[in-house]
Formats: sequence, structure tokens, C-alpha cells
Amino acid sequence: MRKFAIAILALASLGSAAGPKFNAKQELERPADYRNWVFLTSGLGMAYGPSAREMATPPFDNVFVEPKAHAEFLKSGHWPEGTTFVLELRRSLTGQSINKTGRSQGDVVAMEVAVKDSKRFSGGWGYFEFANGVASKAAFPATADCYSCHKENTAVDNTFVQFYPTLLEVARAKGVLKAAYLQTEQAAKK
Amino acid sequence: MRKFAIAILALASLGSAAGPKFNAKQELERPADYRNWVFLTSGLGMAYGPSAREMATPPFDNVFVEPKAHAEFLKSGHWPEGTTFVLELRRSLTGQSINKTGRSQGDVVAMEVAVKDSKRFSGGWGYFEFANGVASKAAFPATADCYSCHKENTAVDNTFVQFYPTLLEVARAKGVLKAAYLQTEQAAKK
Repeated sequence: MRKFAIAILALASLGSAAGPKFNAKQELERPADYRNWVFLTSGLGMAYGPSAREMATPPFDNVFVEPKAHAEFLKSGHWPEGTTFVLELRRSLTGQSINKTGRSQGDVVAMEVAVKDSKRFSGGWGYFEFANGVASKAAFPATADCYSCHKENTAVDNTFVQFYPTLLEVARAKGVLKAAYLQTEQAAKK
Repeated sequence: MRKFAIAILALASLGSAAGPKFNAKQELERPADYRNWVFLTSGLGMAYGPSAREMATPPFDNVFVEPKAHAEFLKSGHWPEGTTFVLELRRSLTGQSINKTGRSQGDVVAMEVAVKDSKRFSGGWGYFEFANGVASKAAFPATADCYSCHKENTAVDNTFVQFYPTLLEVARAKGVLKAAYLQTEQAAKK
């Protein structure tokens, strides 16, 4: 009976992670439990665009992916429909508690979300930004930089697998790295 | 039938996270699936001791805790027997792929582990370090710095909850922060 109860609980928990939720206005609801998803990496002060500059107070960016999508990627090297990524930006702190060098993590500054949904988004993926306290949000318009940058510079299917060490190994083993990414990787080794 | 199969799978997955394993030599076996545990934080180039210096190539430290222990902490503010933490040290990279500033994560350098087991360890917790490729490891001797540092400087029960933003809120709400930690926090605000 106890085992059965645990099984029901586990099913309920699997059910609640069943994918992104959109409201009647077609806005994405803020992912609630992403801190229990699979962690992929954290960077500090990363920036990509032509205006990228070293920052005086660089934020950390923690990347999480929904566990069922992660399991599918490990198996097939592909992201299923409904795959959701969260990039959580946190303030970085110096000298916190007994720490004497480097940086530790502070409060959340903002959250960025990517959702794979080929019916909603012409390029297959939609991009969102949630300020603190925002419950739901429309996707950025298709003209926003995120769409072109993710399309052109990602290693696998609009996702920056080159920055996720555990998945980069998987993608390489499964042969799903884009030819364009492999070329830039080769060029960087010269 | 399909639902039942998922339930069995979920039970199996819960079972595999059932705590630290020690071999016949009383060495801890290397935690295998910690990248699927709950992520608590990542720091860059953090150092505590009197000899702490800024590093030319600071490592990232990703902290994970076993999910059942995490769930218990959220509920009670206490770490149960068998609680296991992994601190994964990774090389930090500059200029990887399209990244122009800051740092992203590279290969694993080493892994540190903390296990709560009051029968094995007189202070309640044991500390371990695994170089890459090491399958099992004896705890550091009780005279090692890690024991005294964790005992004296941690916010909750030998754990550096002050560096884990999501748990610091929980600990504060549950009133489990140590008096000594609260004093240093107050002093830092002055």
C-alpha cells in the first residue's frame, strides 16, 4: 500500500512536469519548479553580441532543462516537442560570508525561457523573458535577435549544447552536432 | 499498463537514489548520478582559507544535493542521515564558441563529497575528494581542515546554506540558521 502511494506520488510528479503551459492570451506561464529540473551549466558574465563588454558586476546564468526532455536527448540526441529551457540570471556577490576571492550567487535578476513548439513558432522555438514577479509572458516577436542568434550559432537544434559539457559529449557521440558548429570548432583549434 | 510501467520506472528511480554506498574497505563509492540531483549553486574561484588568492584560471564549483535529502530539508529545515552533497569543480573557459566576455564551464577537475552519517563520523559528517577516474575513496582524516571549517563557518548543520540562495530562504523561514552565522551576517551589514 505504501509502495503504491509512492508510485501515485511519482506519477503525479511526472504529470506536473508534462510541458509548458500557455494561457488564453497565448502567453507562457512562468515555469514554477525549474529549480528541480536538470542543471546543465552556469556561466559568469557571458555575452555574445557585437556590443558585449566585460561587466563590473557580471551575473551568473544557471541553465536548467525539463527532465523528460533531458532523458529524451540522452536517448536520441534530439529535443522533443514541448522541451523547455530556463536560463536563470542571478546577481554575483564578492566577499559573501567567509568567501575571500571569486564570486558566489545572490538574488534572481531575471529568467529567460525557450520552448520548442513547432505549431506555435515558425522556427520551431519561442523565446521569453520574465522579470521578477511576472506570472505570464508573450514570446518575443520573431524579429528579435534571440531567434536569429539561436538559429545561426547553436550546436544542436537551436540549443547552445556547446556550453553544456555533459550534453556536448552526448551530441558528439550521437553525431547530431551541426556541420556549421563543427567547422567553427575546428577553426578555433587552429 | 503503460501508466503502471511508468510507475515502476519511477519507483526504480527513487530506489536508486537511496543514499551513499560504502564498500568493504569503508570507502565511499563515487556518486554516479549526481548530475540528476538538485542543483544548489555555482560559484567561480571561491576560496576561504588564510592562503586564499585570486586565481588566474578560477574553477567553477557546482553544488548538488541528493533529491530525497533536499525534499526533507524543504519540509523540516534539517538534513536527514545519509544526506549527500557533491561539489563538482570544473575548469572555466574564456572565449568559448561565440562567447566574448566572462567564463563558461569546461571539463571536470575534481569532485568533493560530503556525507551525513553520525554512526561513521564523530562530528556527524564525512568529507571526501575524488580525482577524475577514482571509483572509491576513504574519508579525509578527522584532523583535516574541512571538518573544522564546516563545523565553525556553516549556517546550518555543517552545510554552507549561506551560499545556496534557495535554501537560505527556507532556513531563515524555519529558524534553523545557527546563532553564530546570524551574528556574522549582522556584522557584515554594519
